[in-house]
Amino acid sequence: MSSAEPAVAPSEPGSRFLEEIREQPDALLRLLDGDADFAAVASEMRRRGATTVRMVGHGSSDNAASYGVYAFGLLPRWTSLRDSISLTVYYDAELDMSGCTALALSQSGRTPDVVEYARRAKRRGAYVVGFTNDPGSELANECDAVLALRAGPEQAVAATKTYMNQVAGLGLLAAHAAGQGEEFSDGLRATADAMREFLDSVVTRIASIAIPFAYAGRMFVVGRGAEFATAREIALKLLETCRIAAEPLTATDLAHGPVAALDSLFPVWAIASDDATLPAVVEAVERAREAGATIIASGNAAAAIPRAEYLLPSPPASSPLLAPLLSIVPGQLFASALARARGLDPDAPRGLSKVTLAR
Amino acid sequence: MSSAEPAVAPSEPGSRFLEEIREQPDALLRLLDGDADFAAVASEMRRRGATTVRMVGHGSSDNAASYGVYAFGLLPRWTSLRDSISLTVYYDAELDMSGCTALALSQSGRTPDVVEYARRAKRRGAYVVGFTNDPGSELANECDAVLALRAGPEQAVAATKTYMNQVAGLGLLAAHAAGQGEEFSDGLRATADAMREFLDSVVTRIASIAIPFAYAGRMFVVGRGAEFATAREIALKLLETCRIAAEPLTATDLAHGPVAALDSLFPVWAIASDDATLPAVVEAVERAREAGATIIASGNAAAAIPRAEYLLPSPPASSPLLAPLLSIVPGQLFASALARARGLDPDAPRGLSKVTLAR
Repeated sequence: MSSAEPAVAPSEPGSRFLEEIREQPDALLRLLDGDADFAAVASEMRRRGATTVRMVGHGSSDNAASYGVYAFGLLPRWTSLRDSISLTVYYDAELDMSGCTALALSQSGRTPDVVEYARRAKRRGAYVVGFTNDPGSELANECDAVLALRAGPEQAVAATKTYMNQVAGLGLLAAHAAGQGEEFSDGLRATADAMREFLDSVVTRIASIAIPFAYAGRMFVVGRGAEFATAREIALKLLETCRIAAEPLTATDLAHGPVAALDSLFPVWAIASDDATLPAVVEAVERAREAGATIIASGNAAAAIPRAEYLLPSPPASSPLLAPLLSIVPGQLFASALARARGLDPDAPRGLSKVTLAR
Repeated sequence: MSSAEPAVAPSEPGSRFLEEIREQPDALLRLLDGDADFAAVASEMRRRGATTVRMVGHGSSDNAASYGVYAFGLLPRWTSLRDSISLTVYYDAELDMSGCTALALSQSGRTPDVVEYARRAKRRGAYVVGFTNDPGSELANECDAVLALRAGPEQAVAATKTYMNQVAGLGLLAAHAAGQGEEFSDGLRATADAMREFLDSVVTRIASIAIPFAYAGRMFVVGRGAEFATAREIALKLLETCRIAAEPLTATDLAHGPVAALDSLFPVWAIASDDATLPAVVEAVERAREAGATIIASGNAAAAIPRAEYLLPSPPASSPLLAPLLSIVPGQLFASALARARGLDPDAPRGLSKVTLAR
């Protein structure tokens, strides 16, 4: 055996990414092993009156935080925001964070400015909760409480099951804060079941939908409300694994400028869920179509999008807050199939590492 | 005269856009004619204890709100957020907005969901302030107080001077809330003076910088802290007037995925200001350069970006909150010059109208 030969045969490009996408129903159930921790943290938030929820994170963690805004807004009806890390970490603004929970999201628990934010938020009076896949991480040490993602080791650089469990965990925490923890955890179990079947059905069809986009250079991904998180996360997967300049937009923001850039070579992915935001998404897609864009429609109301060229409908969800767990799946699988079609390795995109220590 | 001939000769494509960019120093001074109104609203915010500032808007208005987060955070040290419109308008979440100011941003005062948000925020207990170029608009009627943008009529579809005055106005309001109104308005006057000279100098050089990008299809625009608003607004101008798929990213988010998409045909515009966020921006640009991207550096610390191919430095600013007023200018002028080079009319981009009534 030549010393230049790797000791372990490398797996096929993208096999880890795909495997981790497929593990998501199991990951979701593992999250529920920590249900009592979520209940305890929610109870402490209520006890302290820490009902303004400041969330921080980068990349997929920040996308999950977009969902958190809706989870805390719709369930306990608390104000929740994706906080500026710069304001606290770089400018050292002396914000009064009493009455606040600071939720620091980092899969690795090592994102430097998220760790530093947690440290400072505690000094400013916040109840600081770390939400990480590594409860022994530096982040965990800085926090008043830690919630474990329990996603299991994630080896592909592009996050999938950690994103899934961040979203589900934010929903679960918000549900406990509203006294609806049991109902929500039942919903998560049902979602995990539905996801298993859905995953299999999408896997068999996704290549034929992804391959026509082999040479696409740009894309918009639109969603609104709780699905804006999904739009952001699908766009990020397309950027990092397929090198498509994919930009997430709320359905309404599309009309406020970006629609002017569309043409037949600039496709639009629309996530349509059966909730109160659906009319805004349908209207946005109509504008995109007028501009000549090819439309991919997903979400549990994909069928409500008139004349979409490609349809990736999700199973129904019992609440607008469960739908995003299912509607992310076709985006992940599309990225997986398209990356392969483009000869890229989604397990290890160029220029990225699993733990991002960038300032 | 043939009846097919237009009664009024059409102006040269983009002439209104360019003219309105050049009017910005005057627009900025006109804003200060309403200084007493800003002082009065700030005083009422303090009197009511309405110190959590919820901002809403679409497009350029939402970009200005990104700046507002820093203005309220750095000056009165209040928590400020770009609020979810969907949560209140579509999902009708019953958030308690007592202790909040709702700042509704709409140039036209007619953006439907912003008007509806204002109506509902008042019911939820917020002190509702409209910030619009049309103080007789529907939005103004729904609010407890109205602040006039005083930008003068804006005819080009792509916003410039209304964005400028939204940013300046948010800064002025935050400064009054912190008891620093006089200092900030002096700063605005000095900025208007500096902008006049700066505008002239950029106008003479911009075509030679923009034309090499005649065929660019995609771009990232990075900034951090107070300049993230600038990054968002430059990206929007490039999208709507030049049809470039331009995506704004915080400097740190670039490393959390999107950097993988970069190559020599995917340029990066970096806004570098001389404040505490500069090291993060410099580090992000280094990563982009490693990926082979061409770099355009602007902002008052543009010279700190090593080996940028194109430099568009702004004059120094006496505060991180004044810098964004100057650093937006090269982005607007670049969009103006590049749209012309691409044969597009920035006065009237395809598919857009001045007043966006989209859901």
